[in-house]
Amino acid sequence: MLKIASIACSLSLATSAALAQDRLPIDQEELARVSPVLQAYTKDDLFGRVWQDPALSKRDRGLVTVAALIARNQTDELSDYIRLALENGVTPAEISETITHLAFYAGWENAMAAVDEAADVFEDRNVSANQLPAVDPDTMLPLDEEAEASRQSFVQETYGNVSQGVVDNTEQLLFLDLWLRPGLEPRDRSLVTVAALIASGHVEQITFHLNRAMDNGLSKDEASAMLSHLAFYAGWPNVFSAMPVAKDVFESREG
Amino acid sequence: MLKIASIACSLSLATSAALAQDRLPIDQEELARVSPVLQAYTKDDLFGRVWQDPALSKRDRGLVTVAALIARNQTDELSDYIRLALENGVTPAEISETITHLAFYAGWENAMAAVDEAADVFEDRNVSANQLPAVDPDTMLPLDEEAEASRQSFVQETYGNVSQGVVDNTEQLLFLDLWLRPGLEPRDRSLVTVAALIASGHVEQITFHLNRAMDNGLSKDEASAMLSHLAFYAGWPNVFSAMPVAKDVFESREG
Amino acid sequence: MLKIASIACSLSLATSAALAQDRLPIDQEELARVSPVLQAYTKDDLFGRVWQDPALSKRDRGLVTVAALIARNQTDELSDYIRLALENGVTPAEISETITHLAFYAGWENAMAAVDEAADVFEDRNVSANQLPAVDPDTMLPLDEEAEASRQSFVQETYGNVSQGVVDNTEQLLFLDLWLRPGLEPRDRSLVTVAALIASGHVEQITFHLNRAMDNGLSKDEASAMLSHLAFYAGWPNVFSAMPVAKDVFESREG
Repeated sequence: MLKIASIACSLSLATSAALAQDRLPIDQEELARVSPVLQAYTKDDLFGRVWQDPALSKRDRGLVTVAALIARNQTDELSDYIRLALENGVTPAEISETITHLAFYAGWENAMAAVDEAADVFEDRNVSANQLPAVDPDTMLPLDEEAEASRQSFVQETYGNVSQGVVDNTEQLLFLDLWLRPGLEPRDRSLVTVAALIASGHVEQITFHLNRAMDNGLSKDEASAMLSHLAFYAGWPNVFSAMPVAKDVFESREG
Repeated sequence: MLKIASIACSLSLATSAALAQDRLPIDQEELARVSPVLQAYTKDDLFGRVWQDPALSKRDRGLVTVAALIARNQTDELSDYIRLALENGVTPAEISETITHLAFYAGWENAMAAVDEAADVFEDRNVSANQLPAVDPDTMLPLDEEAEASRQSFVQETYGNVSQGVVDNTEQLLFLDLWLRPGLEPRDRSLVTVAALIASGHVEQITFHLNRAMDNGLSKDEASAMLSHLAFYAGWPNVFSAMPVAKDVFESREG
Repeated sequence: MLKIASIACSLSLATSAALAQDRLPIDQEELARVSPVLQAYTKDDLFGRVWQDPALSKRDRGLVTVAALIARNQTDELSDYIRLALENGVTPAEISETITHLAFYAGWENAMAAVDEAADVFEDRNVSANQLPAVDPDTMLPLDEEAEASRQSFVQETYGNVSQGVVDNTEQLLFLDLWLRPGLEPRDRSLVTVAALIASGHVEQITFHLNRAMDNGLSKDEASAMLSHLAFYAGWPNVFSAMPVAKDVFESREG
């Protein structure tokens, strides 16, 4: 559908790609019966071009897409996208821990719906219990005590009087526990958090978490490519609402 | 449920209306078993009064409702509402193109879920491939080159450094392609875009698209009636968040 | 998962609680197969601790959770949560009226999806028609005429020129009808409204409705506990977006 050669040239990559057309997580026949135009955009642009763009690895695209669908509670093709993530290098442990993480960042029932889908995929692929993150890991990741003390004292001071329960659970469950679990690298934990925030329109929380993601190793080019990828799965408006925030974060880190 | 005669009088239109009660896209029996009150509001107010209000045609209400449900990923009764739209003058091609359009404005999986529903309706009604918009139309709609150059240079300047991918796809896929497709009149394309934005709470994008809708021929009275219609399908809070933005747009165009 | 004894001590309550583990609205087996970590959080923290916290009664937690799930259109486990609410003192009439209320505050199709789930629960429990709120109650609740006149004149003046239909329906259907229905106490009607607004990210409307909830008898401690409860069901980001608004409301009422 693209008219410009410099972009369209990447289309030629599509046929030889890992995302073979016969394995697209899309019902091609139904799509053809309702909208041949949308079928062409899906094949040529989304899978033929966006997913092939090396600015973000297919492995990361898999993780980002799964996070976006969980955050948006869109389970129709979630099992296909979990499979696609697994085929591109995401481990079952990482899928498991992403779902656990998003219980907190997207809502408990979003995670429960994702569990339903992942259970089928894990069963098909014979994922066993010892491939999953342990409830009590031998070692947790190291805590940046200074950063956490500063975060906690800000939140306590600002919101202790509003809901001490929220303040306590945020410290005890999220920052002294969930974020220190070794089942997902901090950079990936941040990646799925930011993807979920953009995909569900939580603009206010993007500044903190995009900064944290970049502190945890996400490059600016990867963040830019994630925005471009998410435009398709979260819709253009969610991405355009995130753009000014991302701009501020990028500029504040360059200055 | 209405207590005021001047409004309630329109109720008398209901019985003779195209929306015969036995064809309401609502399971009356279940509704009666859970909430006779909600059944009465549905019958008397939503279908008996709102859908009958000539300030917005039933055809437009069909399109607006389908767009709102797709944007909110609510597919339970979507096939019924697609049927209702078709019975009131929306063509299969327009439904097809609305779904394609909302893949970009509401998210790919929202469109895929809508494809599932529309496929059943199209099959029931024997919609054939030649009734659907072509992938490569003989002629695209004319481009307002000046307006597009101005939009593109603003977006490039503001966000080129944030995500060139988003900027390029927005130009190439949306404004030089999707918006020029003849399968949906620009006024209707704007109508479904604005309905989707309001229904999913994307307040930031309403200013641009409501102005564009009115440039494309949507009258102020129709926009007002759309807000009133959407209060039911998107919930009052989404409409009250859109009201100040609509107010600014209306006033800026009158001044 | 909690590391601090002062919070963890409440865990001991869990085993003897009304929420026996074998009746959790969660598929334990599937959860174990995908994420033993999330299973532990669900059992120990969400049901073992949060639901047991007396700062908000289990009855209110039932109502708040049902409202949050309806507002988020999450129906997978909604029937289980409706059962849990009923077992903890919410009446079928209150569930019925909550669904009716949220048709307006969360969207018509959210309510229709909830009707589907509630119909099954009501059938299982032999809820009969005379247990449901009447379409035309013998007496409506008294109207605070001064407050309503002030609300209406503000809305009329601000938005009459934007959409008279919205202004009229808001007065006639919501404030002169729905809010006066005796099927749900004003304090509970406000509770489900605020829960729905927080759960769906409608920050702009929280100020008005949280004030109204507290005028209607919701205590500050209950509101704080509701925020803490909703963090799990609506996700942390929705609650952190609501916190500054709640802070302003609490402070304005103390000053």
